[in-house]
Amino acid sequence: MPGSPLLADLIEALRCLPGVGGKSAQRMAFHLLERERTRGLKLAGVLREAMERIGNCTRCRNFSEEPVCALCANASRDRQVLCVVESPTDLAAIEQATGYRGQYFVLLGRLSPLDGLGPEELGLAQLSARLGEGEIEEMIIATNPTVEGEATAHYLAQLARAGGVKPTRLAHGVPLGGELEYVDRGTLAHAFGSRQALE
Amino acid sequence: MPGSPLLADLIEALRCLPGVGGKSAQRMAFHLLERERTRGLKLAGVLREAMERIGNCTRCRNFSEEPVCALCANASRDRQVLCVVESPTDLAAIEQATGYRGQYFVLLGRLSPLDGLGPEELGLAQLSARLGEGEIEEMIIATNPTVEGEATAHYLAQLARAGGVKPTRLAHGVPLGGELEYVDRGTLAHAFGSRQALE
Repeated sequence: MPGSPLLADLIEALRCLPGVGGKSAQRMAFHLLERERTRGLKLAGVLREAMERIGNCTRCRNFSEEPVCALCANASRDRQVLCVVESPTDLAAIEQATGYRGQYFVLLGRLSPLDGLGPEELGLAQLSARLGEGEIEEMIIATNPTVEGEATAHYLAQLARAGGVKPTRLAHGVPLGGELEYVDRGTLAHAFGSRQALE
Repeated sequence: MPGSPLLADLIEALRCLPGVGGKSAQRMAFHLLERERTRGLKLAGVLREAMERIGNCTRCRNFSEEPVCALCANASRDRQVLCVVESPTDLAAIEQATGYRGQYFVLLGRLSPLDGLGPEELGLAQLSARLGEGEIEEMIIATNPTVEGEATAHYLAQLARAGGVKPTRLAHGVPLGGELEYVDRGTLAHAFGSRQALE
């Protein structure tokens, strides 16, 4: 940036944010300097603290700055249902969209031997131990509907059955508000095959 | 954010960035935590330093962490031309698009009595003093082509003439690559009236 090496550094550093290129980074830097110094400083502080302190919950592997996250520590949540997701983002999506009040387990990945992600990396021993505690009755498998996600779901279902827990899977089908014409073939074929009787 | 109050704080703090709403802030936070911890920490440090240390150059009022910015301190730049712009963003745009190698003066605003922006707030006394130094021969007035920008340009032109400096203004007209059909009326009328003889 002409005139200020520090400003140039700031613009470069802002590019670590996803979807932010040179132009946006420049606009952000100028905006903060011209109008939002206080909030910019606040962001700097929170960002440092988050990068340094946020780890993973020892119980569910979700992001947490405490050894046990607020969701696991919340005594009012149902301890008989466990929802298994691939990532903290998926957990957040479910938490925001549904009224689910049970527990979670975050795999932090999916079974993908080529990427070196096996049962160990996904914490499946820990998950088995948790199923073995005897509290959980249903395990909702909410991995993504991709090839790897489905393989992981299959593996998880076996794990659940071995632990005497009932495995369930999110329903696949035509999205609400979607038009059949634009739904992909695989989804449409699945929805057609899994059609349900109307009462 | 479910599970981590610190993560919720980070998402909230990221919303101070322009064009970043709740969804983008969440995506940014997860991206940094999952993949870019080092660069996230770097950003936190640079951001704090920039917010605390970047002020304005005492000579041209551009952003600078030093009393005199790198542009003003650069002895190889032409001292006979001074380009006056409204904001550091405009300075950056000119610096990036043109081969201009002269000096700058940043108004940090435009004449706008209703907003309490008069000659004093724009540092015009300082600008006059600089014109009075006798080095400058041409003052390029690069305020925005808005009503307030034009009024400011008019005022600046008088100031230049009073200081014995030749004022010039960026050319207005049809943008390169634009189609006449889509150019606004005012611009088209101006371009038509200011038509130039071809050699």
